[in-house]
Amino acid sequence: MDDRIRAHAETLVDWSARIDAGDEVVMRVAEGAHDLAVAVAAELGARGATLLATYGSDEVQRAYLRAHDGEFAPAEAERALYDRADVFLSLGGGRNTTATADVPGDVRSAYARSRADAREARMATDWVSTVHPTRSLAQAAGMSYEAYADFVYDAVLRDWASLADEMAALKDVLDDGREVRLLGEGTDLTLSIEDRVAVNSAASVAYDSHNLPSGEVFTAPATAEGEVTFDVPITVQGRRLRDAHLVFEDGAVVDFSAAAGEGALADLLATDDGAKRLGELGVGMNRGITRPTDNVLFDEKMAGTVHLALGRAYEACLPAGESGTESAIHTDLITRMDEGSRLVVDDAVIQRDGLFRWEDGFDA
Amino acid sequence: MDDRIRAHAETLVDWSARIDAGDEVVMRVAEGAHDLAVAVAAELGARGATLLATYGSDEVQRAYLRAHDGEFAPAEAERALYDRADVFLSLGGGRNTTATADVPGDVRSAYARSRADAREARMATDWVSTVHPTRSLAQAAGMSYEAYADFVYDAVLRDWASLADEMAALKDVLDDGREVRLLGEGTDLTLSIEDRVAVNSAASVAYDSHNLPSGEVFTAPATAEGEVTFDVPITVQGRRLRDAHLVFEDGAVVDFSAAAGEGALADLLATDDGAKRLGELGVGMNRGITRPTDNVLFDEKMAGTVHLALGRAYEACLPAGESGTESAIHTDLITRMDEGSRLVVDDAVIQRDGLFRWEDGFDA
Repeated sequence: MDDRIRAHAETLVDWSARIDAGDEVVMRVAEGAHDLAVAVAAELGARGATLLATYGSDEVQRAYLRAHDGEFAPAEAERALYDRADVFLSLGGGRNTTATADVPGDVRSAYARSRADAREARMATDWVSTVHPTRSLAQAAGMSYEAYADFVYDAVLRDWASLADEMAALKDVLDDGREVRLLGEGTDLTLSIEDRVAVNSAASVAYDSHNLPSGEVFTAPATAEGEVTFDVPITVQGRRLRDAHLVFEDGAVVDFSAAAGEGALADLLATDDGAKRLGELGVGMNRGITRPTDNVLFDEKMAGTVHLALGRAYEACLPAGESGTESAIHTDLITRMDEGSRLVVDDAVIQRDGLFRWEDGFDA
Repeated sequence: MDDRIRAHAETLVDWSARIDAGDEVVMRVAEGAHDLAVAVAAELGARGATLLATYGSDEVQRAYLRAHDGEFAPAEAERALYDRADVFLSLGGGRNTTATADVPGDVRSAYARSRADAREARMATDWVSTVHPTRSLAQAAGMSYEAYADFVYDAVLRDWASLADEMAALKDVLDDGREVRLLGEGTDLTLSIEDRVAVNSAASVAYDSHNLPSGEVFTAPATAEGEVTFDVPITVQGRRLRDAHLVFEDGAVVDFSAAAGEGALADLLATDDGAKRLGELGVGMNRGITRPTDNVLFDEKMAGTVHLALGRAYEACLPAGESGTESAIHTDLITRMDEGSRLVVDDAVIQRDGLFRWEDGFDA
């Protein structure tokens, strides 16, 4: 076994999920994640946790959903399982990223609704979602399998304690700040963040962070004014979106364009009122992620990028009594903070040309 | 997909597990059983059952058990799952029948003990165990994969309703009978079965039968007198046993020999007092099973064979207030009832030269 698979498992169990003896663990294994599952099982055994492995097969789900009439009963046995479980580990990594492409959307939605209770019970555990490199994910990223595996392990096998400290510093700046300004080519956007609370997403339940890899600090802007260009391409509901450009007035999008996928962007913005507003400002700080791979869980963590989400804000960022953007969507759009860019908080330059002031020393 | 996989899934869901809308189903998927899992998921979706798939991976289990110190906590989350589930479907079919060969026996036993409650809850569902043909199982059977798949589907895709009727006739004979005599080359054994209850194992929970394929009628003999030769080779605790010969007096083995594996047979008989006595007399009636494949779940169902189990008797065969053989083991030994053999119940010949009287007409 590749030593990196063992290291991944150890990071997941120790740093991310903080598993102790006696913890009841449910581990969902995607079709292509067998090798990681074996490595995680060894870590769980060594720590004296209990283990039930579930099979997260896209093809099994597709067959089930396509055959079903859409009147789903609640999944009470599954809910009972998660009610008793302490930890849920999702090991992603399928064999075909489009395996469920021919499941009708209304069936998919009805199924998700029927499982709301089970999902809630699952999210109440110390859950962590990670991904094992597979050929299918390499293909989605436009990469060879070997290069993609290198990419994933560079992103996962970080010095997380040290990164958590660095992110804590940025969290402090954002927590204390009133206003953020983003400057760059095609970007001059001002966001109010007064009283909002930043999350130090350090890939560990100890930081209320549930993805491995992670590596971002995010908060929920209250207003937005100005324009922004997103030069990292993403896929939105199956359609490729390039160089999206948004103009905000009074917190809402009033004009938009895109070099590709403008129709997809228009559909996205038309979802509901909240879809025209921002739910998140996130700063990518994972230096192991050096290129986009058409997988938002990695792309948004890329060091030297900032992302803004259209739609729903996360509770964790809102002070008591304040409500953030509400929407059926939460779609991250990403911009590179490279040469010529600035991230400014209350007139202090925090990041310049993609480097933070504590890296570059420009504040010294 | 091979049409036979679909037919297997349909047989499992309809004939064996009798699944209805709203049933909560847990489906355990072995490493090599993916294709059957997809087919079963479609059947479950079509019937409006709920589905949670678990991953029955030998390699995951091996890694977990080898890393564990052996002090296992009870699996309460898993128990909660089975407490709420209506049906448990086990889809066997691994990639290596010896995948857990290097797990120490004491760890294996301690693990099994820690899961007694979870197992009990699982056995309280309408559970059915079946097997998907894999290369590993083909290899264990000494067969090519194609030939092995043909073999499995011949065994599974029977006219079960018709076989259940035929087996019901034999069950009546055994229920009414006082004494069974087995005659053949190296075999002249008399068994008392008075008041014992035969089980019509027709591969369906409706018949209290939990294996697909099945196809046997079995009861629990109270005493045994005489000798018997088992000419179907089996593997006992990793050792090959051929032409085992047992001599019974007053229900217990008083002498034994074997052409191969006599040491294994000696160890088996020495397990405990019950290991020298019989727990089961079974009559194989599945005509799709035409050869042994070193897999007792198939071998013991082979038409034209009879098997006797050393050790524990099944509750279902015992009238209220009567206890059968108790033992830590239940090991089936199989003999062919071919040319020259007789199965006699209370002086009536039931089977002659491997054919029942209703097949051969010798009673007409």
